[in-house]
Amino acid sequence: MSQTMTLLALSGSLRAGSYNTAALEALARLAPAHVTIVVYKGLGDLPLFNPDRETQVLPALAALEDLLQAADGLIIASPEYAHGISGVMKNTLEWLVSGAAFINVPIMLINTSPRASHAQAALREVLTTMSGNIVDAACLAIPLLGSDLDAAAIVAQPLLAEALTESLAIFFTTITELPDQRFGAAI
Amino acid sequence: MSQTMTLLALSGSLRAGSYNTAALEALARLAPAHVTIVVYKGLGDLPLFNPDRETQVLPALAALEDLLQAADGLIIASPEYAHGISGVMKNTLEWLVSGAAFINVPIMLINTSPRASHAQAALREVLTTMSGNIVDAACLAIPLLGSDLDAAAIVAQPLLAEALTESLAIFFTTITELPDQRFGAAI
Repeated sequence: MSQTMTLLALSGSLRAGSYNTAALEALARLAPAHVTIVVYKGLGDLPLFNPDRETQVLPALAALEDLLQAADGLIIASPEYAHGISGVMKNTLEWLVSGAAFINVPIMLINTSPRASHAQAALREVLTTMSGNIVDAACLAIPLLGSDLDAAAIVAQPLLAEALTESLAIFFTTITELPDQRFGAAI
Repeated sequence: MSQTMTLLALSGSLRAGSYNTAALEALARLAPAHVTIVVYKGLGDLPLFNPDRETQVLPALAALEDLLQAADGLIIASPEYAHGISGVMKNTLEWLVSGAAFINVPIMLINTSPRASHAQAALREVLTTMSGNIVDAACLAIPLLGSDLDAAAIVAQPLLAEALTESLAIFFTTITELPDQRFGAAI
């Protein structure tokens, strides 16, 4: 019997036809039965980060924090805009900085534009600074930019489907083998 | 008779007691009579960037674009959050990417936390990618983080006021000596 696992997936683009969102939705479809991937679509409902509001109750943030708390790992696919992290993704991470759920969370990164390296490097710096645990072996780049592929078409492309499935399997195995360091569980 | 000049100032923090906003407001008070500094406070009213909405009319964006179009230069003071550009500033820049007003605009950067270098480096990369013209000689770092100083108190500190005034003077002179390359004016 396999261990079951829930993974939270966040796209850094609000574009309806986003390749990053499509990659996450493809991965959710490709996931084996014992792995549930929740693609959260509420990042556009978060307000712009304001430290003065960190003590307020924000419904979109509360929902996101609950999902992160319940997840065994985090999958991020985020575009590069003007050589930087998308504001949507950076804004999301700023709201999560002060919460406990992010500490030591295993992270898989999907880069849908393999020639874009500035934003990925900046994103890694931010995630590491936030004490996230980037699982390098599970991170992958797939060339979707300009491909016109949606989630269904990605699933139907054997090479892309195989790359995503293989990375997810590595991510799954790595998580199962990690010591439980989240939520102060480690002694 | 001096040439008059208008400069647009943007703070990357929405915090009411932001040192970045305070530095910009201090600079506005210190500016000589022939230099008007407009500190725009509407960045929090911009929606999160969505490429699908770039053709929509967004009042907060239209106001910002008009101010940028009318300005002879741009002054940015932006905090570092988790080793990255603030989402507020990055989001603002994404909305401005597609407009013509940003191309070749002279830029002065104020860093209120001199030990924070990651976000400044990332911000420089983004601004340069957007064809902004960072005027290095006018960029300055002043140690405000944790100082509890507001705009009035900054103005009242001779060393800080002098540093800001000197940078502004360099920025002014540099702009007056630049060939006019904005809005396709250069031949």
